[in-house]
Amino acid sequence: MLGAIEAGGTKFVLAVGPSPERITARHTIPTRDPETTLAEAAEWLAGQGGITALGIGSFGPVELGRTSPRWGFITTTPKPGWADCDIAGYFGGVLGVPVGFDTDVNAAALAEHAASGSAGGSLAYLTVGTGIGGGLVLDGQPVHGIAHPEVGHIYPRRHPEDRDFPGTCPSHGDCLEGLASGPAIMARWGMSLSHLPADHPGHAIIAECIAQACHVLFASVAVEDVVVGGGVANTPGLVERVAQRARELDAGYLPGTARHRVIRPRLGSEAGITGAMMLADGAAKA
Amino acid sequence: MLGAIEAGGTKFVLAVGPSPERITARHTIPTRDPETTLAEAAEWLAGQGGITALGIGSFGPVELGRTSPRWGFITTTPKPGWADCDIAGYFGGVLGVPVGFDTDVNAAALAEHAASGSAGGSLAYLTVGTGIGGGLVLDGQPVHGIAHPEVGHIYPRRHPEDRDFPGTCPSHGDCLEGLASGPAIMARWGMSLSHLPADHPGHAIIAECIAQACHVLFASVAVEDVVVGGGVANTPGLVERVAQRARELDAGYLPGTARHRVIRPRLGSEAGITGAMMLADGAAKA
Repeated sequence: MLGAIEAGGTKFVLAVGPSPERITARHTIPTRDPETTLAEAAEWLAGQGGITALGIGSFGPVELGRTSPRWGFITTTPKPGWADCDIAGYFGGVLGVPVGFDTDVNAAALAEHAASGSAGGSLAYLTVGTGIGGGLVLDGQPVHGIAHPEVGHIYPRRHPEDRDFPGTCPSHGDCLEGLASGPAIMARWGMSLSHLPADHPGHAIIAECIAQACHVLFASVAVEDVVVGGGVANTPGLVERVAQRARELDAGYLPGTARHRVIRPRLGSEAGITGAMMLADGAAKA
Repeated sequence: MLGAIEAGGTKFVLAVGPSPERITARHTIPTRDPETTLAEAAEWLAGQGGITALGIGSFGPVELGRTSPRWGFITTTPKPGWADCDIAGYFGGVLGVPVGFDTDVNAAALAEHAASGSAGGSLAYLTVGTGIGGGLVLDGQPVHGIAHPEVGHIYPRRHPEDRDFPGTCPSHGDCLEGLASGPAIMARWGMSLSHLPADHPGHAIIAECIAQACHVLFASVAVEDVVVGGGVANTPGLVERVAQRARELDAGYLPGTARHRVIRPRLGSEAGITGAMMLADGAAKA
């Protein structure tokens, strides 16, 4: 039996099942302080009986370096209490099973890649919600580099009608997250994107920001698909606008252009927990 | 004996040697039409005697898909006569040896990665010259995605003093290549960057463009090093300016930030041909 945790800043989604494609029980708990949250998650997982490996897709930043003594830690997060939290070590110790560990968005990218049916393909998963993050799978493997991708913090070129907003990112001001995350949209217009009138320029402004990120991913690593998930991405028509604008930005130039797709998650909101199940499966086989 | 070709739009550099680190003979020929150029290159290589494998790092776009019938082709280049040129197939046929093939910038990235001594590390090689291109090595392997990286065609955020220049890229206007390549600099100011006075705003404008690309590579794939080569990068002080500006853009945020470096090529102008020798070595062992 595989166990899985999608560890988010607001909630932890827990699941068990015999294979990544088959979740037989699930449970969601609110994210509070680490002690309370981790203990409650471990109790539920232990109560399912017979877990042989666990996968965790976690909010970050996290340490993924296999040779680091801090592998499996949430590291420098501003979330109160959670900095330097040894989340993988905790569950490995309490449950006594091998643990697969990656970022929440790399887990989602793994699951979306598997769902695409493209064995050797390349895919990015972009989540646009409370924050903006990106996961990346190249040739079937999640990308870590020397840490992990943080594509939410690139600086998109500003839309011509969007010159003045200073952005909300405490580190970067008007990076992608500072311009187009849920809180940035709220700070700009006092409501969510899906509540703005259909003819409001905000729709084109946010689509431009996200399309710039898609173009960066197509141009810099030649992914086939950019999957756009997260709460903001549920705004009707947004992903279609982004896809159209990304095509315009490329202008048919890039060598992979005919195969580029900007799409909604094939797995919907199941991508993250399914990816965590895949991490468990990998740990079981390691 | 390994043979290698660095196939550029202006010249072909040819080399042979017993290992990638040891080039024992080299020859440079001007790039003319494919028939003349390829025949002259093949004649010189055949004359060196006993080549057992060939590596080619080529200008692009190229086809790298191993299952494609057009693997080893230069594909849609606007360079007269060179579109749909089966460059790997030509040399494999004439010389009767296995051929390793990649982009010129992936070859350079491979060689710079080897020179860095970081076995599992991640590195990008950016060339800023007649065009702007990028190669990428992650976990020791060159990145292809579904085609190959073309990071010269992202849209950098414009410098505040650089709002008006429309750019020179026929496809994108003011993409990175359209703003900061050698021909773009010439079109802007009528001279090369190294001929502009030291207090000319052009230095900051070009550094800003290239630093945006470095930040994109740090944020999207978490490379450790961005190596900046090419003719424009030889401008005194430019790479140092780019490194400084990239640090400012990151603001200490990214999880790998302490290890990020923007540097000049460790191998100087030898990166491309050394990488092509490495491709030959890989083909010999395949």
